[in-house]
Amino acid sequence: MQIAIDAMGGDLGPRATVWGAAEALLIHPELEARLHGPIDILEAELARLPRRLHGVSSRLLLSHAPQVIPQGLKPSSALRASRDSSLALMLADVASGRASAGVSAGNTGALMALSRRALGTVSGIPRPAISTAIPTRGGGRCYMLDMGANIDASAQRLVEFALMGSIMARQIDGLARPRVALLNVGIEATKGTASVRQADALLREIHEVNYVGFVEGDGLFSGSIDVVVCDGFVGNIVLKASEGLARMLIERVQATFDAHWGSRLVSLLARPALHRLKRRLDPVRYNGASLLGLSGIVIKSHGGADAQGFACAVSRAVQEVRIDLPAHLERELGQQSVISSVVCGRRDSGFPTRSKPQDFNPER
Amino acid sequence: MQIAIDAMGGDLGPRATVWGAAEALLIHPELEARLHGPIDILEAELARLPRRLHGVSSRLLLSHAPQVIPQGLKPSSALRASRDSSLALMLADVASGRASAGVSAGNTGALMALSRRALGTVSGIPRPAISTAIPTRGGGRCYMLDMGANIDASAQRLVEFALMGSIMARQIDGLARPRVALLNVGIEATKGTASVRQADALLREIHEVNYVGFVEGDGLFSGSIDVVVCDGFVGNIVLKASEGLARMLIERVQATFDAHWGSRLVSLLARPALHRLKRRLDPVRYNGASLLGLSGIVIKSHGGADAQGFACAVSRAVQEVRIDLPAHLERELGQQSVISSVVCGRRDSGFPTRSKPQDFNPER
Repeated sequence: MQIAIDAMGGDLGPRATVWGAAEALLIHPELEARLHGPIDILEAELARLPRRLHGVSSRLLLSHAPQVIPQGLKPSSALRASRDSSLALMLADVASGRASAGVSAGNTGALMALSRRALGTVSGIPRPAISTAIPTRGGGRCYMLDMGANIDASAQRLVEFALMGSIMARQIDGLARPRVALLNVGIEATKGTASVRQADALLREIHEVNYVGFVEGDGLFSGSIDVVVCDGFVGNIVLKASEGLARMLIERVQATFDAHWGSRLVSLLARPALHRLKRRLDPVRYNGASLLGLSGIVIKSHGGADAQGFACAVSRAVQEVRIDLPAHLERELGQQSVISSVVCGRRDSGFPTRSKPQDFNPER
Repeated sequence: MQIAIDAMGGDLGPRATVWGAAEALLIHPELEARLHGPIDILEAELARLPRRLHGVSSRLLLSHAPQVIPQGLKPSSALRASRDSSLALMLADVASGRASAGVSAGNTGALMALSRRALGTVSGIPRPAISTAIPTRGGGRCYMLDMGANIDASAQRLVEFALMGSIMARQIDGLARPRVALLNVGIEATKGTASVRQADALLREIHEVNYVGFVEGDGLFSGSIDVVVCDGFVGNIVLKASEGLARMLIERVQATFDAHWGSRLVSLLARPALHRLKRRLDPVRYNGASLLGLSGIVIKSHGGADAQGFACAVSRAVQEVRIDLPAHLERELGQQSVISSVVCGRRDSGFPTRSKPQDFNPER
């Protein structure tokens, strides 16, 4: 299995991606990683790999990409930009079938737009959603989508997210009937925006989804829901707020120990445990995010991820390749689109067919 | 100073409100609290007050209210319901001037609708926003509004929230130029919904607000912003998600200690500190929320608040009474409405005047 990697994205750049790819190869002995980026930078980073990762270096393939898409570049500009960027060449590997999946920690908007152009979407999905798993009480996890790819989501789009999230939780996590909920400001049917109220009505008719109704914000972490659906505006804000809060809380736990006890012994003892916890709880940094609905597997690693975080994103890609998640989405959404057309026929002419980037505004 | 209290709201009912009011009286020697509820229930609760609170019982006045507005009742039904409810009678005290402010831990939608009918709004504000202070890094705090009163907020409404939040932070917290930001999915002007992009453009023209631009979700807790503005859908979900996450994190910190160290000593030592921290960090439970924009002072205590939490809500009411926050809002928004009419004239005929409940749908 070969995974293509955009080595130039993320806050730490190749320092995190090259090392992270090597970490992933250590975990997956059958894996090869093809790194895209300026060859001199990649070679320099490879030369700095710690000794314990030297054994995997023969499975780290380097591919020269002269261009890098900067973090701030708009998706529309990225689409017009040179096809020699590390991001575009990584995606070309996936599109050609040379690689089974692609991973990038770079510009999310550019990754969305270029992935969609390079790979297209599965039938019935006009535009992918971004989904990641967040940790929940009781040690479980919950998929949240969309995390920012679809700022305004109609009821129909929210229903698609519910279908895709449900298929992912079933196929990847082996849940028989994943519990799917819509994020809202209350659990009564009269609460919320027009989109969530319409999506609620639609989902009650789709028996292939184990739809459990509305969930409020605290339900995200309750452990009682497997897939939480919302538009990308809310999803992105909630995820980033959670990151910020988690960081603040861990700092304060540490500060509380430092301040309150005469002896700093407890504080010192607590430090490694807190560090471990910080890792495990940072809801985005240590999980790859799936671009769900593409006709191919692309994982977005968090921009702030270190090598360990990036390795997790690569492992996520491996998981989705093993299951062949896009094939499941294609097959099940194909069946669903019949069901949904019936349900939605009143207000919608059914799902659009496989779409190309021309019909979306990449600025949003 | 007299504060009127709806003693029947909240998950714990009079157990939290009566005791909480007494706690507040202990802190504020000049204060009287007038408790509204079924007299037999109030008397029974008063008889159970712990000894250390006996000294304040002469300042706890009881007022018989035969009806209670249940938690699930819709605002429209609450508006039609008997005026003998503990909530309505509490508000009547505020409207008549007998009490300087009112506090309730009950049904938020009903509280909003009845407050607006009883007190009206300050000039230029069609509908109040709910605002609470959340803890930030570095031990500071940040006001967030709206937290759920306005599910869909136009650019104009977001601008009003920014103005009100800025005035509150200046008057109550003594900040010279509170930093005000709009919550969004990115900091570039092209990001986000139409409303936030329009509000961004409008706020750049209003020099009375120290507007610093967009902030992402993690900015809420960063300590670099004093007032974060968003619509009530996002605000409510973010706040409740934060509550859920804070609860989960503290549990996991405790579990990490229990699991990882042979000796449970550290865990036992950590317990009280964690408990204190849990209190301080629960972003909503231990702060009252202001119904900002009413022509009167009404504080919503968290439904899950215990006596300590309810006492904090009463203290918040006292603070706003001392400053006479509605008078500041009335005066400054009166001036602002001139400025804003000029700015907004292109797309809006200026601020509506003082409004009555007829023109809003209390279900949303």
